[in-house]
Amino acid sequence: MTTNSPIPYPFVAIVGQEDLKTSLILNVINPGLSGVLIRGEKGTAKSTAVRALADLLPEIEVVDGDPFQSDPRDPRAMAPDALARHLAGERLPVRRRKVRVVELPVSATEDRVIGTIDLETALKEGRKVIEPGLLAAAHRGILYVDEVNLLDDHVVDVLLDSAAMGVNTIEREGVSLSHPARFTLIGTMNPEEGELRPQLLDRFGLCVQVEGLTDPARRVEVVKRRAAFEDDPAAFAERWAGETEKTRQAIAAAIAAYPRVKASDAILYAIADRSLKLGVDGHRSDIVMLKAAKALAAWAGRDEVSDADVDAAAALALAHRVRRRPFEGIVREGGREKGEG
Amino acid sequence: MTTNSPIPYPFVAIVGQEDLKTSLILNVINPGLSGVLIRGEKGTAKSTAVRALADLLPEIEVVDGDPFQSDPRDPRAMAPDALARHLAGERLPVRRRKVRVVELPVSATEDRVIGTIDLETALKEGRKVIEPGLLAAAHRGILYVDEVNLLDDHVVDVLLDSAAMGVNTIEREGVSLSHPARFTLIGTMNPEEGELRPQLLDRFGLCVQVEGLTDPARRVEVVKRRAAFEDDPAAFAERWAGETEKTRQAIAAAIAAYPRVKASDAILYAIADRSLKLGVDGHRSDIVMLKAAKALAAWAGRDEVSDADVDAAAALALAHRVRRRPFEGIVREGGREKGEG
Amino acid sequence: MTTNSPIPYPFVAIVGQEDLKTSLILNVINPGLSGVLIRGEKGTAKSTAVRALADLLPEIEVVDGDPFQSDPRDPRAMAPDALARHLAGERLPVRRRKVRVVELPVSATEDRVIGTIDLETALKEGRKVIEPGLLAAAHRGILYVDEVNLLDDHVVDVLLDSAAMGVNTIEREGVSLSHPARFTLIGTMNPEEGELRPQLLDRFGLCVQVEGLTDPARRVEVVKRRAAFEDDPAAFAERWAGETEKTRQAIAAAIAAYPRVKASDAILYAIADRSLKLGVDGHRSDIVMLKAAKALAAWAGRDEVSDADVDAAAALALAHRVRRRPFEGIVREGGREKGEG
Amino acid sequence: MTTNSPIPYPFVAIVGQEDLKTSLILNVINPGLSGVLIRGEKGTAKSTAVRALADLLPEIEVVDGDPFQSDPRDPRAMAPDALARHLAGERLPVRRRKVRVVELPVSATEDRVIGTIDLETALKEGRKVIEPGLLAAAHRGILYVDEVNLLDDHVVDVLLDSAAMGVNTIEREGVSLSHPARFTLIGTMNPEEGELRPQLLDRFGLCVQVEGLTDPARRVEVVKRRAAFEDDPAAFAERWAGETEKTRQAIAAAIAAYPRVKASDAILYAIADRSLKLGVDGHRSDIVMLKAAKALAAWAGRDEVSDADVDAAAALALAHRVRRRPFEGIVREGGREKGEG
Amino acid sequence: MTTNSPIPYPFVAIVGQEDLKTSLILNVINPGLSGVLIRGEKGTAKSTAVRALADLLPEIEVVDGDPFQSDPRDPRAMAPDALARHLAGERLPVRRRKVRVVELPVSATEDRVIGTIDLETALKEGRKVIEPGLLAAAHRGILYVDEVNLLDDHVVDVLLDSAAMGVNTIEREGVSLSHPARFTLIGTMNPEEGELRPQLLDRFGLCVQVEGLTDPARRVEVVKRRAAFEDDPAAFAERWAGETEKTRQAIAAAIAAYPRVKASDAILYAIADRSLKLGVDGHRSDIVMLKAAKALAAWAGRDEVSDADVDAAAALALAHRVRRRPFEGIVREGGREKGEG
Amino acid sequence: MTTNSPIPYPFVAIVGQEDLKTSLILNVINPGLSGVLIRGEKGTAKSTAVRALADLLPEIEVVDGDPFQSDPRDPRAMAPDALARHLAGERLPVRRRKVRVVELPVSATEDRVIGTIDLETALKEGRKVIEPGLLAAAHRGILYVDEVNLLDDHVVDVLLDSAAMGVNTIEREGVSLSHPARFTLIGTMNPEEGELRPQLLDRFGLCVQVEGLTDPARRVEVVKRRAAFEDDPAAFAERWAGETEKTRQAIAAAIAAYPRVKASDAILYAIADRSLKLGVDGHRSDIVMLKAAKALAAWAGRDEVSDADVDAAAALALAHRVRRRPFEGIVREGGREKGEG
Repeated sequence: MTTNSPIPYPFVAIVGQEDLKTSLILNVINPGLSGVLIRGEKGTAKSTAVRALADLLPEIEVVDGDPFQSDPRDPRAMAPDALARHLAGERLPVRRRKVRVVELPVSATEDRVIGTIDLETALKEGRKVIEPGLLAAAHRGILYVDEVNLLDDHVVDVLLDSAAMGVNTIEREGVSLSHPARFTLIGTMNPEEGELRPQLLDRFGLCVQVEGLTDPARRVEVVKRRAAFEDDPAAFAERWAGETEKTRQAIAAAIAAYPRVKASDAILYAIADRSLKLGVDGHRSDIVMLKAAKALAAWAGRDEVSDADVDAAAALALAHRVRRRPFEGIVREGGREKGEG
Repeated sequence: MTTNSPIPYPFVAIVGQEDLKTSLILNVINPGLSGVLIRGEKGTAKSTAVRALADLLPEIEVVDGDPFQSDPRDPRAMAPDALARHLAGERLPVRRRKVRVVELPVSATEDRVIGTIDLETALKEGRKVIEPGLLAAAHRGILYVDEVNLLDDHVVDVLLDSAAMGVNTIEREGVSLSHPARFTLIGTMNPEEGELRPQLLDRFGLCVQVEGLTDPARRVEVVKRRAAFEDDPAAFAERWAGETEKTRQAIAAAIAAYPRVKASDAILYAIADRSLKLGVDGHRSDIVMLKAAKALAAWAGRDEVSDADVDAAAALALAHRVRRRPFEGIVREGGREKGEG
Repeated sequence: MTTNSPIPYPFVAIVGQEDLKTSLILNVINPGLSGVLIRGEKGTAKSTAVRALADLLPEIEVVDGDPFQSDPRDPRAMAPDALARHLAGERLPVRRRKVRVVELPVSATEDRVIGTIDLETALKEGRKVIEPGLLAAAHRGILYVDEVNLLDDHVVDVLLDSAAMGVNTIEREGVSLSHPARFTLIGTMNPEEGELRPQLLDRFGLCVQVEGLTDPARRVEVVKRRAAFEDDPAAFAERWAGETEKTRQAIAAAIAAYPRVKASDAILYAIADRSLKLGVDGHRSDIVMLKAAKALAAWAGRDEVSDADVDAAAALALAHRVRRRPFEGIVREGGREKGEG
Repeated sequence: MTTNSPIPYPFVAIVGQEDLKTSLILNVINPGLSGVLIRGEKGTAKSTAVRALADLLPEIEVVDGDPFQSDPRDPRAMAPDALARHLAGERLPVRRRKVRVVELPVSATEDRVIGTIDLETALKEGRKVIEPGLLAAAHRGILYVDEVNLLDDHVVDVLLDSAAMGVNTIEREGVSLSHPARFTLIGTMNPEEGELRPQLLDRFGLCVQVEGLTDPARRVEVVKRRAAFEDDPAAFAERWAGETEKTRQAIAAAIAAYPRVKASDAILYAIADRSLKLGVDGHRSDIVMLKAAKALAAWAGRDEVSDADVDAAAALALAHRVRRRPFEGIVREGGREKGEG
Repeated sequence: MTTNSPIPYPFVAIVGQEDLKTSLILNVINPGLSGVLIRGEKGTAKSTAVRALADLLPEIEVVDGDPFQSDPRDPRAMAPDALARHLAGERLPVRRRKVRVVELPVSATEDRVIGTIDLETALKEGRKVIEPGLLAAAHRGILYVDEVNLLDDHVVDVLLDSAAMGVNTIEREGVSLSHPARFTLIGTMNPEEGELRPQLLDRFGLCVQVEGLTDPARRVEVVKRRAAFEDDPAAFAERWAGETEKTRQAIAAAIAAYPRVKASDAILYAIADRSLKLGVDGHRSDIVMLKAAKALAAWAGRDEVSDADVDAAAALALAHRVRRRPFEGIVREGGREKGEG
Repeated sequence: MTTNSPIPYPFVAIVGQEDLKTSLILNVINPGLSGVLIRGEKGTAKSTAVRALADLLPEIEVVDGDPFQSDPRDPRAMAPDALARHLAGERLPVRRRKVRVVELPVSATEDRVIGTIDLETALKEGRKVIEPGLLAAAHRGILYVDEVNLLDDHVVDVLLDSAAMGVNTIEREGVSLSHPARFTLIGTMNPEEGELRPQLLDRFGLCVQVEGLTDPARRVEVVKRRAAFEDDPAAFAERWAGETEKTRQAIAAAIAAYPRVKASDAILYAIADRSLKLGVDGHRSDIVMLKAAKALAAWAGRDEVSDADVDAAAALALAHRVRRRPFEGIVREGGREKGEG
């Protein structure tokens, strides 16, 4: 039923699915949240929402012409070539463009993900001819994997290594090139096809569960909007342009406000208390909750984290970290509002 | 028993099998229905019907000489080369031809499905020498997989990626080319050889179950027609030519009428009600039912969807989407008329 | 005990095994019967009979020098090169030769079965240098697989695709050539080593079960003939030459008579009745039975199908198509006469 | 404990193991017996006996310089090159040499067994540069596989195809060459490491079971001879040279006498009776028994098969052909005398 | 939650986790301890601590420009090239630099670990063009494997061989080069994803179990420090610089003191007693305990091993060596203090 | 805990482990014993002892510059090149050097074990450019496999073939070279990681079980010696130099005396009796026991085998040959003295 129209369905026209939409926006506000895993049945708006997100993303500066998305102002986020030019005193050409959503197809080979080196030229001419991979394209952006639980184990290993080290290494028969590769990982999955390896599950900062709407009126609204969109995508998008622009500006404001958001010691203790009560492993949950709560406050226009922010953050950050317990209980708590498919 | 005659058995000469024939015609009227999965025992007319369909398909316009079936009037359905020429202001040469049925053999390699790149030439001469695959040939047409449940997992991944993104990427050691690849997927399967992965199952808009006829008189009719056809395929086709032409025109009329078909709010609520009662996942089923019901109305020459259209659409669209329940009950309901083998 | 003598054991000197011999001859009379599967224990005359069959086959006309066995009188059975010459108005050189038995060894690679393309030359000189495979050699003839149940799954997929489409596609990295490939498939198997995939089983028109003889006098006759043959193959063949010639002429007569054989409606109903009673899948069984019955009538010199022909045809055509029931009961019915090993 | 001395242990110095020695000699007398499978525990004289056999083999004539062992007097046993020269009227150079024992190591690759083609040269110079494999070397000789039950399945397929067709096909990317490959297959196995596939088991004409000696005096004799051999292989061989020569002459006499050996009808009925009583599959057992019994008569200097010959032949030919019954009972009957290890 | 900042989190700012920190420091004091295995749940400071360790490591001397980290003063720790120059009397250029932490990603290929040889150049120019692997880079340093239990079996074999022989052999089609490869192996693992092969487990001198802190106040401290670090890594590191420098000097002092540390016979008997009581295999545990106890004494500024040192050493060295018993009991004993995540 | 010092730990300084040390020395005295399998827990002196053995090995003569260790005095132990020169009458250059211990790493590829051929040069220049493998290096020496039970099945097949035939064949695409490859196989294994294939087990002449010492005083002695060795390997070796030299001379004397050692018939009967009582397979055990007993007598300076020699030989030769019975009982009998780890 995907129409594959090059015009994406507007994010703001999605009916319901508040958890899903919030978790995506929080990751735009603070990319340090490390992504979101979207679990849900077939035919819910999982992919639609992620693709629609592209429209709302802020701009970043990149070194013009650099296939590795080097940051012209931060040597630590530069690939070797840009770094060499920077160190040689060159003033790197700057281009502004939107943060990118890079899609990783399930059938992608390791070469396509990692990139390759044309070894012959490398050896003959002493020059590394690099074909950057999807990890280079996703640096400083969003890497989106539809059906992330179907990924080949080898590709998962590559994602884990890259997520752990913030670096991707392209190599072929001993010749190698490393470049920064830091990205927000967004994955969707239908649990019917199998679960994630614990290691990969842990790499997602947040997790939401999406389900179809059960209110007939809202279902009809979904079908009406969808039919209208398929009849004429451009006109439909136009109709929602105002709403889209408003959301875009709200996100920009929240990004700007985030560093000023404060969390009291009481809030920090409330966060620690959550993790301890649920028995989640380690400390990562505390830090994700703090970041999510601050992003929620910024999104709400406040500069102080509230107890409600902690509640909402816990609902998004803890469900997939609870050890050996069923998911649903917790997800339902924080995911009561259901959405469009 | 396949005679492999280059002259296909006439679609209109198939005895019975109304569900199968209807589901194929609906997909021709609205390719947005995303195909049909034909389940059934050995020796029923599954393959015969799909191959016969070719005769009834309408014409489309393609860029002449373009192996990617680029649409001369829609830049979003153009492959890179045609698009570049279009953007350079060239008036692309147009050719009219029938929508194509491309057959994907179970033994096909990934290279044959995706296409390949002659890397040496690409690197030496800076020119990409592309050998387009079956997905390029099937763009804007029908991709037919006999025994779809026997497909290699890697090829299934490729089909899923392509169906999800509307794009196919040919790549070899880092050199890559992407082109639009949107097709109606038609698959047959004998459940004795194993079921489909849920992910692939969900990609089929409709699903029908075919069985052998149990009325002796109709069985004898099948054998008589089949024997007559094998004795002299050309003469047999000639005998059915009038009927074939009538069906062809009826399909063309339905295609033209489709955009004018209306569905009342009562109809939309009836559709939502069906999905909710059967507990199917998500919202895809509602949208498929709406499209199928509209196509049925157009096929019947009406410009308003009726309750009977919803009933028939539900029989075709819901059976394979019901969660964890046996198939037969539902399929039988909407699939009472059996057909030829 | 295979002597591998280049002179085959005479078909007519095989003791007993009437079912096996009849099923082979029926396929020669009407290649549309799609072959025969020979099941049986070790050391029965399975391979011997198939190899001996070569001696009895009629002649066909082929395009001289064409490795694809193109039919000089039928463009639809021509490979691309012959077809191009034909379309260019060339009068194709004709050669008469016997129908061929092509043996597919269990260890054959996919390349050997399908054929290959010398890619380098193809790209450099713009000329496709084809090395045709066993499927090209078997076009319009018999493809024989000893121990067909041991075939590699990939090769089985190739056979199924070829049988389903009547076409074989040779491809290598995107360069491809398709040619007609229609053959009678004859396979032997010892069920001790595993059963066939249902899909492949269904491709065989007929199926016979062979067993060793239990009458001591006939066993001694087998050994005597076999020993005489091994002592001096040429002399032994000479001794049976008259019988061989008589059978060859009888087959030729039956081929000529086949198109004139009629089947009454009563016969057609009797056929449909058989399938329905045994609960076989679909309609293929009816059509195979009709063809087998007609071939039996032709072989007996009659031009009307009798009830006995239907009985015999049912014994050969239905056993392997009955759903989920043990084989033996039915096979025994129609396979009472046992034969030589 | 294999000393790997290039001088083999003398066949005639092996203590006991009469079954094993007889079965090997019978295969030398009549290669049509299709080999012997030697089953037995570790450390019995299995390999020693086969390697020792080389010393007793008769001479054959081969085309000098031909790596395919073409027979200068039999066009049907010639490889393509020799055959072409023969057909061109050339008088082929003849060389006499002993029948060869070719050893097939368990780790041998398919290429080494089948042979390969240097494709580059073949295409460039239009000349097939063949590297013949072990099957070419074993033509008209003995192919010996130690631990035959450990062979890779692909290599087993190659052996079975070659045994079934008497032909080996060397192929690489569509270029191919076929040559005659008929050999006596001798295999040893320790059942502890797994059984044979039924298909391969059936290819062995005879089967013997060897066990260690249980009489202390004979065990000491084994150790004494073995120690003497290891101290000075040449001297030991010299000591047994007379015995060896006597056996060699006896074998030559039996080969000459074999064609004159007669079997009465009573004998043939006795043979058939054996197979029927034990319920072995098919007729191969009868024919092997007849051949073995005739070879036993020839070896004993008689020109009429006796009842005792049938008994002994049955003991060697039937054990591994009895369906679904334990081996030991039968083997013990005909294998009472145990031998050296 | 990994920020992948190029500035590592300061080792000394890690809250708690005393066992983990001690075991790492002991390995720096005496690399002969052969590394440490860090077991623990997700989100504890496992990786953080290892990466932080880099800051505290002492300097070593290497042959300048040598990719194999050859020791300019020890011919036995030189790679072939450096050794050849040394033997030729050349005075090798010396460079001082810190001991290195080399990270082995789970997705690394064998080639990347072992290194490769450019065979073409090697054969054509008689010159070995080596691309050293991670084992060359790790020589005389630390090899760190995050998620060591997910390593491919082939890579584990390479690590085991290298650990056993102190040598790594780079080879490609028969050309090979061996170089010294001795390293401290540090691995982390989450037991949820599977256990280690016993062989690899045994290669780790020490083993610690890390768990999240359960004291709310300390959890809040962890989050506060972490948030401060992520806000401004440089400023945070600066704040801890004094503490870091103190630890660095203490380590240097302990390294210098180690050779002077004595262990009385009573201590040695206490060590032997520990192994015998727990029933650990072999003698390796005794020797590791002795080394660890001496390093603990050196770290505490004493030159005599105390009973408490033996207790602490046993807690680190024995847990993973006890045969077939659950881990927790013992680890808990010696690992009571928990730490940051 | 392996220090990987290039100076090996002195054999004579190993505490206890008498069985292990004796079995190694017996194989040096008579390489016809075909090696020893060392079973034992982690951390016992298994590897240490084998590596230490190198120091005690006698010298042999080899053809100078020959990578196949050809014996200048024995054409049957020459590789093709040396043999050709010898047959051409050349006086081969002789070099004396110690018998070598060649280590086969578990991660070694088949190419590295077997060797390879540079095919391109071979075909172009008609010259075989051989890269000999580890089997060539081990000819006439010791092949040592640490963790022999972890070897890849393909490499095990290669070892078995080579052990069975005394020959190794290097081949690549049909080009091949065979050279003698006879070696003493020494393997260690920790049964926790899995058992050996029976076939490989049988190739080891002797088998010992090693365990850690349980006497505290001896354990302390082990640690003391080990610590002293690690502090200063050269000084430690120096301290044991006298003892080492004495052992070296004793071994040389035993080698010289071995051919003169006699075994009475009573001894031979005692040996046969042992095998029969324990029910070992075949005769290999008798012959190994005889050789081991003679070597023990030679080592003890006697020229007559005693009953005690038979007892000791049985303890080493029979344990791993007893059919289907637990190991421990027997091993304990002959392996009472335990040793260092």
